[in-house]
Amino acid sequence: MIQDLPFFLATLHDAYAGGLRPAEVMRECRRRIEAAGDPGIFLHLPQEADLVAMAEALGPFDPQAMPLYGLPFAVKDNIDVAGWPTTAGCPAFAYTPDADAFVIAQLRAAGAIPVGKASLDQFATGLNGTRTTGPAPLNAINAELVPGGSSGGSGVAVGRGLVSFSLGTDTAGSGRVPAAMNGIVGLKPTLGAFSASGVVPACRSCETVSVFALSVDDAHAVFRAATAYDPADGYARPVAAPLPGPVTPLAIGVPDAASREFFGDAAQEANFAATLDWLKAQGHRIAELDFAPLYEIAVMLYDGPWVAERHAVIQDLMERRPDAVLPVIREIVGKAGRFSATDTFRAQYRFRDLKRQAEALMAGLDMLCVPTVPALCSLADIAAEPVAANSRLGTYTNFVNLLDMAALAVPVMPRADGHPGNVTLIAGAGEDAVLASLGRVMQADLAGAPGAPGWPLPALAPAATAAAADEIIVAAVG
Amino acid sequence: MIQDLPFFLATLHDAYAGGLRPAEVMRECRRRIEAAGDPGIFLHLPQEADLVAMAEALGPFDPQAMPLYGLPFAVKDNIDVAGWPTTAGCPAFAYTPDADAFVIAQLRAAGAIPVGKASLDQFATGLNGTRTTGPAPLNAINAELVPGGSSGGSGVAVGRGLVSFSLGTDTAGSGRVPAAMNGIVGLKPTLGAFSASGVVPACRSCETVSVFALSVDDAHAVFRAATAYDPADGYARPVAAPLPGPVTPLAIGVPDAASREFFGDAAQEANFAATLDWLKAQGHRIAELDFAPLYEIAVMLYDGPWVAERHAVIQDLMERRPDAVLPVIREIVGKAGRFSATDTFRAQYRFRDLKRQAEALMAGLDMLCVPTVPALCSLADIAAEPVAANSRLGTYTNFVNLLDMAALAVPVMPRADGHPGNVTLIAGAGEDAVLASLGRVMQADLAGAPGAPGWPLPALAPAATAAAADEIIVAAVG
Repeated sequence: MIQDLPFFLATLHDAYAGGLRPAEVMRECRRRIEAAGDPGIFLHLPQEADLVAMAEALGPFDPQAMPLYGLPFAVKDNIDVAGWPTTAGCPAFAYTPDADAFVIAQLRAAGAIPVGKASLDQFATGLNGTRTTGPAPLNAINAELVPGGSSGGSGVAVGRGLVSFSLGTDTAGSGRVPAAMNGIVGLKPTLGAFSASGVVPACRSCETVSVFALSVDDAHAVFRAATAYDPADGYARPVAAPLPGPVTPLAIGVPDAASREFFGDAAQEANFAATLDWLKAQGHRIAELDFAPLYEIAVMLYDGPWVAERHAVIQDLMERRPDAVLPVIREIVGKAGRFSATDTFRAQYRFRDLKRQAEALMAGLDMLCVPTVPALCSLADIAAEPVAANSRLGTYTNFVNLLDMAALAVPVMPRADGHPGNVTLIAGAGEDAVLASLGRVMQADLAGAPGAPGWPLPALAPAATAAAADEIIVAAVG
Repeated sequence: MIQDLPFFLATLHDAYAGGLRPAEVMRECRRRIEAAGDPGIFLHLPQEADLVAMAEALGPFDPQAMPLYGLPFAVKDNIDVAGWPTTAGCPAFAYTPDADAFVIAQLRAAGAIPVGKASLDQFATGLNGTRTTGPAPLNAINAELVPGGSSGGSGVAVGRGLVSFSLGTDTAGSGRVPAAMNGIVGLKPTLGAFSASGVVPACRSCETVSVFALSVDDAHAVFRAATAYDPADGYARPVAAPLPGPVTPLAIGVPDAASREFFGDAAQEANFAATLDWLKAQGHRIAELDFAPLYEIAVMLYDGPWVAERHAVIQDLMERRPDAVLPVIREIVGKAGRFSATDTFRAQYRFRDLKRQAEALMAGLDMLCVPTVPALCSLADIAAEPVAANSRLGTYTNFVNLLDMAALAVPVMPRADGHPGNVTLIAGAGEDAVLASLGRVMQADLAGAPGAPGWPLPALAPAATAAAADEIIVAAVG
């Protein structure tokens, strides 16, 4: 029964190999979206006939030419899909692009099919997912919790099994926090790997499009298909996208006792400790670090002049139609006016010095491992403290993009309260495949069925053992 | 007679090998400084006894351990030498550091001996060398011309043969313009190769300490000794400093006819054309380029928010004692107040886009060749147009540091009026040795005796042919 068919890449491709047609999967995708009964997930859905037409245009199943053949995906609504409105969560900002974002074109060429534009915290400014003008998406696991943001709709669409994967964006953690909240995988690639052409920026110098998926393998397959150097994006870089390899013993930095912060969520604390026990049992070396320099960098992202990057995007709108911008976003972005050019360069110098401290801290390590969120966050928490509760969500995510690192949020064993555990692995720029190599085994060994639908993870294929010349994996943080 | 001994590295080392002692060279250096009769060159000179003590502390001649053994050098007065005042050209700013700048310590360890602090355009803001509180240094070749700046004293000290080499700093061209004005070599290394620890910054994100010398070989020897990664400098990078290699046929980009600007200096125009004829005759391919994107980047350095970097250095002084800052510097740096944090990020985005255009322009080329200055500049020109005439000097230098490129200003054949010609070779970050490989041959084939003293260039040693594993030279601009 197609209603029971998991939307993993492997299960869909098995079904396509057995004769299933992508158009049927598009119809099933639409049935699932309707059955989900959550009007907060998508801001735009095309006509079903349009989806079917895209599916039929794919031609016969050819996973070599199209490694993402027939996979339905959701698109955060700050990324252009030709002919669909882009709103960035702000109806007054809406426009309808003629062309796909570069990254959408890459994914279409790989055979994936966009099925809708997903809700977000307005202008991707937030980590909780409820900073919306319409209804916020409901958390896929527990409706009392926030969906996570800013890529809330993208996280929930995957968490509920409505799509195979989705695109988010990530500056402060928007591609990772929703993964923790919805029990799925969040892949925040190396900066510049995915083009930002056709994406509404939030904080252009230190953000990236990101991927949510049910499994590390699926997320990494999307990473490989989406990664391509785009000279039209001034912040793009050539980034290697090899296959994951076998896991060798790693040196993994973690926050020391004084640096760990769970804001009273004992279940999260125990879950992280259990994850570290597993890592040690696997033969990895755990190095406890004083995260102070990383936390100081984290604070700079919202309290320093980088907030002016957000202002650069919406200055005109805020001056012309201030009421069109949510008050909480106006308040945050309005802080940009406090900072001069001189302040900006001083902050960039201070950041350079802190980065050096962070490099010294991480010297000799292969990666970091942190809780993705320090504590689960409820809708009641956000209602009580709209800014402070949101900020807490970014404790372990905020510093990553400023430090030009890659990150992978991975489901682990369930917490004591049954919510899926989730940790984030973090390594230097270009180390995306190293993260996937450990993350895929970690998820398979530790986590239950991802997200809400209860589909068991497909058996892991053996890791690539002989990397091709252009696919050498070298682990290094420092 | 020591009075006739050229201060080239090779001639001094020959003399040391023959028994001359460094203390005698220090005394001769002081004699030459006094004989020069120009109080504008140095802002501080130590006691002669201190120089002699430094020389005697060197021990026996050992050029293997100390590749710059016994070479006297001048230090731009925005670089710390322990126990000597640092003024940055502003007496009210003066302080006396306890420690050497990192780069001074490197040079001392290599056997070089600092002999004095050299004049500069105040806070290294200028390209003409006369923005001083006391007398400006006199041009080494022609006293009607400006010395060039901001590293004016450093350029003249070498141009007059008072020292073997000198340190300058270079943001907009301060390490290259004085080379053209005084008929010597100006080496502006890859950003981050030389540490900025202990240097008064001008524009910290895009500047570097630089080297003036009489020959390309001497400048490159200093480059090799000074280059060392300093983790305490947030903008430092590990940079390779191999020996120059043999010259292979190169693809060299030059401004096309519409992009060439000589402000009416026909001798400069003819001199540049003759240099290109020589390059073609040597078998190099000349590609004529539209320099428009480079010029647009150049304008950003002074007219955009980067001027706030200068403001960050002297904001306190300008508020406390505005009269202590030269009016022309106050006017330039005061422009920082026009720019907000939002403006700053917007300019950085625009720069990224222009950088992409520049990369496309230079794709497939090994280096660029430009006139170092578009026209000679007289004291009368600066008196008539203190800002505009200064700006013209940076026509071919301003864009280089923002684009993260290395540059080498090289003496070529004399102009029709007898002033030494000078062109700048420019290549990508890390290509310093590639520039030296061509520059050393260029100087030897084309130029007369460098600077004022009339010392013939020592015969070139054969270029290194078998580069060691860490000394591979790869030429690439794009």
